[in-house]
Amino acid sequence: MIKLQRSYLLFLGDAADQLAAKTAAGIAQWRPDWCTGQLRLPDCNADLGLTDQTLVEARAAGARTLIVGVANRGGTVSDLWRDTLLQAVGLGYDIASGLHKPLGDILGLAAAAETTGTRLVDARFPDRAFPIASGIKRSGKRLLTVGTDCSVGKMFTALAIEREMQSRQMPCTFRATGQTGIFIAGEGVSVDAVVADFVAGATETLAPANEPEHWDLVEGQGSLFHASYAGVSLGLMHGAQPDALVLCHDPNRAHMRGLPEYALPQLSDCIRLNEECGRLTNPACRTIGVAVNTSHLQESEAEALLCEIEIQTSLPSVDPVRQGAARLVDAL
Amino acid sequence: MIKLQRSYLLFLGDAADQLAAKTAAGIAQWRPDWCTGQLRLPDCNADLGLTDQTLVEARAAGARTLIVGVANRGGTVSDLWRDTLLQAVGLGYDIASGLHKPLGDILGLAAAAETTGTRLVDARFPDRAFPIASGIKRSGKRLLTVGTDCSVGKMFTALAIEREMQSRQMPCTFRATGQTGIFIAGEGVSVDAVVADFVAGATETLAPANEPEHWDLVEGQGSLFHASYAGVSLGLMHGAQPDALVLCHDPNRAHMRGLPEYALPQLSDCIRLNEECGRLTNPACRTIGVAVNTSHLQESEAEALLCEIEIQTSLPSVDPVRQGAARLVDAL
Repeated sequence: MIKLQRSYLLFLGDAADQLAAKTAAGIAQWRPDWCTGQLRLPDCNADLGLTDQTLVEARAAGARTLIVGVANRGGTVSDLWRDTLLQAVGLGYDIASGLHKPLGDILGLAAAAETTGTRLVDARFPDRAFPIASGIKRSGKRLLTVGTDCSVGKMFTALAIEREMQSRQMPCTFRATGQTGIFIAGEGVSVDAVVADFVAGATETLAPANEPEHWDLVEGQGSLFHASYAGVSLGLMHGAQPDALVLCHDPNRAHMRGLPEYALPQLSDCIRLNEECGRLTNPACRTIGVAVNTSHLQESEAEALLCEIEIQTSLPSVDPVRQGAARLVDAL
Repeated sequence: MIKLQRSYLLFLGDAADQLAAKTAAGIAQWRPDWCTGQLRLPDCNADLGLTDQTLVEARAAGARTLIVGVANRGGTVSDLWRDTLLQAVGLGYDIASGLHKPLGDILGLAAAAETTGTRLVDARFPDRAFPIASGIKRSGKRLLTVGTDCSVGKMFTALAIEREMQSRQMPCTFRATGQTGIFIAGEGVSVDAVVADFVAGATETLAPANEPEHWDLVEGQGSLFHASYAGVSLGLMHGAQPDALVLCHDPNRAHMRGLPEYALPQLSDCIRLNEECGRLTNPACRTIGVAVNTSHLQESEAEALLCEIEIQTSLPSVDPVRQGAARLVDAL
């Protein structure tokens, strides 16, 4: 399982815009205390509001890992990027990347890291093998965020629940299953990059047996209704053995992400199928709430929509961005 | 996608018993015309009833691929095996293996193959990357065998249907998704070894668009009710876009394979969930029959059981070993 050293320096490179640095923005939002600052190259159009630091300044401030939390323009690593990464390795930084291409493909970087004894960590790719899932029920409680579609706020919702539980001194751990989540948790597994046979087993490893009252808050991936990724979602579900599901939904989608021919599922169908599949490995599995992205709506419209979904599903329905996750935690 | 050259020489090594050579036995059963013969070392306790041949004899008879269709004792490759494989490469054979360890791990074999320009093919491991599934409906018809559990006859049933369709001159192709199936089809993908995100996409590649009346007979894997492997089964289902499902069942199981704490699902639940999931990518998806392994029963008991399942499911229920697949093809 991937584990990262802290503190982090967030590398924004020459990000074309704020969106290009969304991975780094997620880290800055959820783990500001773990970040010494941000490193921006000339022509960088993103700004996370953190202190601008050089590699040397951040190292002196305790940074141990340079996080590449930004999309590279055109998918290629420029000489400017490369120089920065090589310097970072020379200064003893680990490099952790969310890029599609492995860091080892950057000319000279692997050799430099071997010389200085630092690590190149590709968060997208698992760094170990996992066992086949045993299906044996583990102690401790688990909540899994599931979705009507991809990219509907499953990570955000799990983190909002973590924040709420922590404020109530409830024992809990956010369990990351994607690259941004891994940076935010400091560890985790990109389950969609695991060999298919081992997805459920990787999830069992990620969220192991724990104290009876402890909650693992497992970041969901994909959707059982997404024609490209549902297998990942099902393996993750079975490995997570969730006691509780939170259904995440973006009501502003014309169709399933990347699939113009596929309409979004009904919330009721989504709840029913997720619960049926979840009960295979945890018969107590039930949906405890709905998390809705209402960012496209005015406050009053958002409230009306949430009210409508609440009536429709008979479940607490919140926008965790606007309202936090208190009502979801109340429902447990 | 893995593709093999023919004819085959089946290597049985020093198989401890007939069961150790079950992969080779499957090839001999379904593709006797593709096999020049069998190669057995001293101490081999398996016999497929094929002509015993030396490497030289089989090569002269047209063999181009030596198939390692046997479990190696203790998981290690003995010197005897190694000598045979090296000689085969020296004679210009491709080697195709169903072993857990890659052929390239056998000392000297990769270098020898490079020298002679022959291929080492590990059927368990995909030899290419696959696209993310598009979910776009393809022309042609597809049948997928699904299961209440693992190892309940999904490959056998698909092959029995192929045989029946061929006898009726119906255009069809068996599509292999596991190692034994790949040897029998001469090509295919071990879908459980594909990176999770790409399982549905690999299946779309494996069973591409075809003539409207052509049937792809897709070998199923695992079960939606198996806590370790259901994600693979669901990705395979969505990529296959099946028009027709055949549910395969072994009534003689005390519990799910490898999972002592898990009971087998009810046939009705299994049919309902498979159809619901199948309809995501093909709204016409329906179950057309049940294939039951009755090998533990006398003829009359088997008939009684099949009759009972037929009443229970309202579907033609056959044991394809005893009766062939005619009634399943009739149901299409």
